[in-house]
Amino acid sequence: MVIHGPNLQLLGSRERHIYGDVTIKVINRELQTAARVCGIGLKIVQSNHEGKIVDLIGAASSSFQGILINPAAYTHTSVAIRDALAACTIPAVEVHLSNIYKREDFRKVSLTAPACVGQISGFGMESYLLGLRALVKLMSGN
Amino acid sequence: MVIHGPNLQLLGSRERHIYGDVTIKVINRELQTAARVCGIGLKIVQSNHEGKIVDLIGAASSSFQGILINPAAYTHTSVAIRDALAACTIPAVEVHLSNIYKREDFRKVSLTAPACVGQISGFGMESYLLGLRALVKLMSGN
Amino acid sequence: MVIHGPNLQLLGSRERHIYGDVTIKVINRELQTAARVCGIGLKIVQSNHEGKIVDLIGAASSSFQGILINPAAYTHTSVAIRDALAACTIPAVEVHLSNIYKREDFRKVSLTAPACVGQISGFGMESYLLGLRALVKLMSGN
Amino acid sequence: MVIHGPNLQLLGSRERHIYGDVTIKVINRELQTAARVCGIGLKIVQSNHEGKIVDLIGAASSSFQGILINPAAYTHTSVAIRDALAACTIPAVEVHLSNIYKREDFRKVSLTAPACVGQISGFGMESYLLGLRALVKLMSGN
Amino acid sequence: MVIHGPNLQLLGSRERHIYGDVTIKVINRELQTAARVCGIGLKIVQSNHEGKIVDLIGAASSSFQGILINPAAYTHTSVAIRDALAACTIPAVEVHLSNIYKREDFRKVSLTAPACVGQISGFGMESYLLGLRALVKLMSGN
Amino acid sequence: MVIHGPNLQLLGSRERHIYGDVTIKVINRELQTAARVCGIGLKIVQSNHEGKIVDLIGAASSSFQGILINPAAYTHTSVAIRDALAACTIPAVEVHLSNIYKREDFRKVSLTAPACVGQISGFGMESYLLGLRALVKLMSGN
Amino acid sequence: MVIHGPNLQLLGSRERHIYGDVTIKVINRELQTAARVCGIGLKIVQSNHEGKIVDLIGAASSSFQGILINPAAYTHTSVAIRDALAACTIPAVEVHLSNIYKREDFRKVSLTAPACVGQISGFGMESYLLGLRALVKLMSGN
Amino acid sequence: MVIHGPNLQLLGSRERHIYGDVTIKVINRELQTAARVCGIGLKIVQSNHEGKIVDLIGAASSSFQGILINPAAYTHTSVAIRDALAACTIPAVEVHLSNIYKREDFRKVSLTAPACVGQISGFGMESYLLGLRALVKLMSGN
Amino acid sequence: MVIHGPNLQLLGSRERHIYGDVTIKVINRELQTAARVCGIGLKIVQSNHEGKIVDLIGAASSSFQGILINPAAYTHTSVAIRDALAACTIPAVEVHLSNIYKREDFRKVSLTAPACVGQISGFGMESYLLGLRALVKLMSGN
Amino acid sequence: MVIHGPNLQLLGSRERHIYGDVTIKVINRELQTAARVCGIGLKIVQSNHEGKIVDLIGAASSSFQGILINPAAYTHTSVAIRDALAACTIPAVEVHLSNIYKREDFRKVSLTAPACVGQISGFGMESYLLGLRALVKLMSGN
Amino acid sequence: MVIHGPNLQLLGSRERHIYGDVTIKVINRELQTAARVCGIGLKIVQSNHEGKIVDLIGAASSSFQGILINPAAYTHTSVAIRDALAACTIPAVEVHLSNIYKREDFRKVSLTAPACVGQISGFGMESYLLGLRALVKLMSGN
Amino acid sequence: MVIHGPNLQLLGSRERHIYGDVTIKVINRELQTAARVCGIGLKIVQSNHEGKIVDLIGAASSSFQGILINPAAYTHTSVAIRDALAACTIPAVEVHLSNIYKREDFRKVSLTAPACVGQISGFGMESYLLGLRALVKLMSGN
Repeated sequence: MVIHGPNLQLLGSRERHIYGDVTIKVINRELQTAARVCGIGLKIVQSNHEGKIVDLIGAASSSFQGILINPAAYTHTSVAIRDALAACTIPAVEVHLSNIYKREDFRKVSLTAPACVGQISGFGMESYLLGLRALVKLMSGN
Repeated sequence: MVIHGPNLQLLGSRERHIYGDVTIKVINRELQTAARVCGIGLKIVQSNHEGKIVDLIGAASSSFQGILINPAAYTHTSVAIRDALAACTIPAVEVHLSNIYKREDFRKVSLTAPACVGQISGFGMESYLLGLRALVKLMSGN
Repeated sequence: MVIHGPNLQLLGSRERHIYGDVTIKVINRELQTAARVCGIGLKIVQSNHEGKIVDLIGAASSSFQGILINPAAYTHTSVAIRDALAACTIPAVEVHLSNIYKREDFRKVSLTAPACVGQISGFGMESYLLGLRALVKLMSGN
Repeated sequence: MVIHGPNLQLLGSRERHIYGDVTIKVINRELQTAARVCGIGLKIVQSNHEGKIVDLIGAASSSFQGILINPAAYTHTSVAIRDALAACTIPAVEVHLSNIYKREDFRKVSLTAPACVGQISGFGMESYLLGLRALVKLMSGN
Repeated sequence: MVIHGPNLQLLGSRERHIYGDVTIKVINRELQTAARVCGIGLKIVQSNHEGKIVDLIGAASSSFQGILINPAAYTHTSVAIRDALAACTIPAVEVHLSNIYKREDFRKVSLTAPACVGQISGFGMESYLLGLRALVKLMSGN
Repeated sequence: MVIHGPNLQLLGSRERHIYGDVTIKVINRELQTAARVCGIGLKIVQSNHEGKIVDLIGAASSSFQGILINPAAYTHTSVAIRDALAACTIPAVEVHLSNIYKREDFRKVSLTAPACVGQISGFGMESYLLGLRALVKLMSGN
Repeated sequence: MVIHGPNLQLLGSRERHIYGDVTIKVINRELQTAARVCGIGLKIVQSNHEGKIVDLIGAASSSFQGILINPAAYTHTSVAIRDALAACTIPAVEVHLSNIYKREDFRKVSLTAPACVGQISGFGMESYLLGLRALVKLMSGN
Repeated sequence: MVIHGPNLQLLGSRERHIYGDVTIKVINRELQTAARVCGIGLKIVQSNHEGKIVDLIGAASSSFQGILINPAAYTHTSVAIRDALAACTIPAVEVHLSNIYKREDFRKVSLTAPACVGQISGFGMESYLLGLRALVKLMSGN
Repeated sequence: MVIHGPNLQLLGSRERHIYGDVTIKVINRELQTAARVCGIGLKIVQSNHEGKIVDLIGAASSSFQGILINPAAYTHTSVAIRDALAACTIPAVEVHLSNIYKREDFRKVSLTAPACVGQISGFGMESYLLGLRALVKLMSGN
Repeated sequence: MVIHGPNLQLLGSRERHIYGDVTIKVINRELQTAARVCGIGLKIVQSNHEGKIVDLIGAASSSFQGILINPAAYTHTSVAIRDALAACTIPAVEVHLSNIYKREDFRKVSLTAPACVGQISGFGMESYLLGLRALVKLMSGN
Repeated sequence: MVIHGPNLQLLGSRERHIYGDVTIKVINRELQTAARVCGIGLKIVQSNHEGKIVDLIGAASSSFQGILINPAAYTHTSVAIRDALAACTIPAVEVHLSNIYKREDFRKVSLTAPACVGQISGFGMESYLLGLRALVKLMSGN
Repeated sequence: MVIHGPNLQLLGSRERHIYGDVTIKVINRELQTAARVCGIGLKIVQSNHEGKIVDLIGAASSSFQGILINPAAYTHTSVAIRDALAACTIPAVEVHLSNIYKREDFRKVSLTAPACVGQISGFGMESYLLGLRALVKLMSGN
């Protein structure tokens, strides 16, 4: 499962100097292509609702083998998503389009990363593809 | 009214070394039994959505006499739930399964407790039953 | 578009010593009257859901010319609403009924204000009317 | 064993707007009544001396099955009592008359709570009775 | 009475990317026009001296019905002006040309705002006009 | 009642560059002389025990009309003494031999002063005499 | 020399619940009376200007034998007055009408006290009289 | 160029519960293999010397097209390496074997990451391989 | 003189994973043996009372030549013991069984160490023996 | 223009162990001599008034080519002088007699330095002469 | 192995009021003498290079049975040395000549101590000899 | 002796918007010229190694009369260089090309400056020349 957090539906029009021109559609298409190459299926969801993301993660263990998540703004404020990820029995990988270390101080704190296997940030769309590769590796028994 | 906050639907499977083996169903059944003994009715709700919990509390004054709430992760991040509880004209009691003082530093801060009559934490399912007893006492004019 | 944040549906009954007796209906009626005088249309929404507010702001650019928002409790906790406002291409004005500088320390921090043109706080219902006037001025090319 | 910390001998005359009118005698009588109902014996002590409380806890394991303690002011300053509770092999429950989250900032920090099973605060005399119930439950093998 | 704080005599030439091209003369003219429309008289003063501003506020109650003040740099450092405003028996409104939330961290703290009815910031010259309107409303019995 | 806190029995031999050559005997004699002049009786106690000082203050209301206290080291660490003073219905005055603002940072925080009428520090033995005068004034109805 | 800091000209009308009903005239008259009893002359000045107070202290050594100062708001913000006092070769005593430990946190920090011999706070007008007595004692060779 | 920071020569024997059993030799071999697949050459260096790493980065622009660096302990303490990376005209990618968000607080601060394009942490040896892939992508014009 | 602080009477039964199996009796016997070898006499005291320890130190100068102290929990909270040690004219050595740097953050702060000659921590019973050797060396004129 | 900040009129008599024996007259004479050598004119002002210094800087652009300023105590407290310097279109150089890094912590923060070209501290009178040289260099087109 | 950290080559000439007159030669000779008495061999190294010290510790396990280290300035800044010590399979003891608790605040933090068995500070050369004794005890199976 | 710290070998190519176009060669040539004018000899060294810089300073007293140092990144992290400078018996002057007050917060802290006579920052190459002049003045007996 791939989860896009809040405001990511706006990619491509939102603050391009930070996030670039790539739209969420393009990212999803690239992820689907890459997944097909690895022989796995992907369910991709975008939500602006913290509670919805908690619902999705809570239910993920029964249907999926791993979670690729960009919690966006909730990275820095959501203990609920952190707890959902910690409660989850499948591996999760956190990705960010921008390098969170180059931005405002409050973006340097990640509440969710300690509940993931690892974090990848700063490579734009490539962060997602690297995250998918890492997840596939983890699921295959690394 | 009893409100279970985020991720509590997972009780029994979630991080058992912290939360134990009891499921939310068992807690609800015990609460209903205890309520029946006291001669009161209970409405029990679980939600992962901060906004939903704010809705419920905002509407509670007209139909209920007290609120028993485990805000879980939102204890530490939600000013909105705090404000809803403060705006509420019926007494509220905050409960926690685990002893929040034994965990991460950010869990030692409760934004919601100052808007409740009191707080009970650390006794597992028993926290809920003690909270119910405290609430009944408060409603009966203590 | 006018967005009322969490717990504002309770105005008039909620903590009157802080928020006064005015209800949200009265505020909305006054805003509509003032808008009619300026010859503009208003859509007014109230929501307790952070995600819903993010949805609304994300979609606002295509249908509206400006946003008047009282983020209430989310002022102090929501990076998601801040990011939504920053991504938005129309001007936004933040208003507060009470003077946030006279209250608890955590209410002195506004996460959302840096993503707005400006902020008005402390004048009760009048804060909204001043905010509307400021927004109309901004939309008319100030 | 029940331990009342510093200044609790003054209950009923001390700052009634915070602590109410109940005296320590009334609390002790109610505790004895409740203990008798549960079929257990209680030793109740009040002391203003940190060292005395450390002595009592250090010796408790050999004669008692549990500790109900209101450390009062020492909650926030005594590492010695914390260490005594941590060294103790019987369960301890911490109670407070007032809701410590509604008071000065320094009262929100509890040094002793992490060494107890749990904490109950804000219900006046009822905090003690709930604490006793929790303790009995713990001793009976919960 | 309208009080312009330190360095505001330089408006129009000072850091235009922050404060814009409007000069203090233009602001004063617009304020006088707006005041005339409301049928009130205005005394406008600019001073770089904290002590002078304290003098003015201390003497204001006897001759004026309200204070519109842009404390500029003293917003963030002057307890003396805060105390003067708090001692004052007529309402005061604080205004800022720029959005203080978008600037250096030390500009996010306002020592003077808690002693005013409210604060308006970020709308350039319009901040003053909105502030005047708010003040007139307050004086007329809002 | 006059209470000397911990280590004050050593005055005259202890760190003379800070506390001077005056012994506690000399201070007590001067206090008795001054009290006699004012026509009041004094009980003077010195204790190194926090609990003892709490005992004394707790019992003071019934036998004395005011408390003159130098809490010494406990000034900076004792919430118990603060609570005892706050619970006390007679006025208390806090005195210090040395100027606590000239010493280590941790000595600038006084936990006990907010529970006293006022504080006098820095004048050596004279601090006690000034404190006695202040107390007499307070008791005589100032 | 006696120096009254900012806003003290308003005493008696300013926030009476904190500062009481006594006016600065009454304080000055009482100080003059007390000084006459001690056989010394007093020059009394009030200023709202930090720079003026620095001027006065800088020039004091040549004409006076001691300084009695209530720096009021400047207590908490003025390094300049602190430096002036430190540079001064005659003793200075700091006084406050209210107990600064009972008020806002920023009033607990005194920048000026470390440059004085001692500090007296919380006794209303009596603080000045005690301060004068302390100063006379210091000048007479204590 | 690949740079392994301090203590990485010990991999495989050092704290295996954190870093796993993989040795630096194995990592280097896997990196060489992966590089060969991509048709690029790799120079791999390990050093415990901050100054040596600064030397290497300072000289890298002239001979290499990108830097893959695991600064290890220097991540959290070296402004010198940060400045070297910032001065460097070729892209750099920071990798970590362990998830730095799961460890001591001081390991959550990265001084070097803001001077890199992005950061990958938590995937063991796979962090390096993902980092290499990210770097190749960046060099190929992403 | 050797002073054992609070809870040390429980050694051997208290949290053995931290403090080991050695009892206070064994430590005292070893200390007496070592002292006899050095030809000196030892008085050994254990107390849970801060005030008692202050009493002991205050009286030590007249009867002893040095103090070996394990202030245990009071290390981190007692300004009174610090002041007693500072007032003392004989050398003091502070010892700890466990390595205080490996434990909770609040145990890394030692209020008492600055008033001792030096500190030894982390070697179990051996800490005492090393401390005794250091003290003997100091007393013999090092 | 050369601006001497508060208390500098006292140089030579003020705290000589920090500021040395040189008087402001000697510094001014040396500055005039040095200026004459460089063929430039100097206006030298000393003021204890923050507002006066703001006035001077605000008016400086029209008559001078550069500002040499020792803001003394205002270095650490004056946002108003910082803003005046930032608004100023001619270069400013900040100088200090003493090494501000060797003194109290609050003197390590310079509010004014970010609005100057550079800062020179610690060389006594020589700081001024070096500052003049730097300023002349800057004015001559460096 | 004995490791002397940065600047210790200067002992005897460096800041004697802190470090005394003893030179590193004398310390080394005393250590060798003491080692000979214990029947063990010592290798003693001094280095100003953090990387060199990391190299030495990394290689120590294979040739030595214990490490006696005075990390000097690196105690407070080197995560790399901490990690090296933590990775090391032989016991390490940290020693300091001066009492680090009596010096600047930044010297109270030890990054390296948590990776050692224990720490000894404040006894001058004797710290080394006590450390050696502790180490020998540890190696002999304590 | 002149010491250039880390990354300064890159001057002219490194981040020119901060450091300008001047290369280290040009700076060295200008320094040599200026030194020749003063009739003194200069040894100039650049090193990226903290340990090397500590070595150089430690050995400087025997061959040189003063140290001109730009510690660059080590300014903010090196206690070792601070200690080396403090141990040094010849005067040292710290210089910086850029104004460290205009940059990241961590660059506002100088660990090394308190061990120097003074600091000069913000004048580009001119900082070095002013520093040399200051040093020459100091060596000639200022």
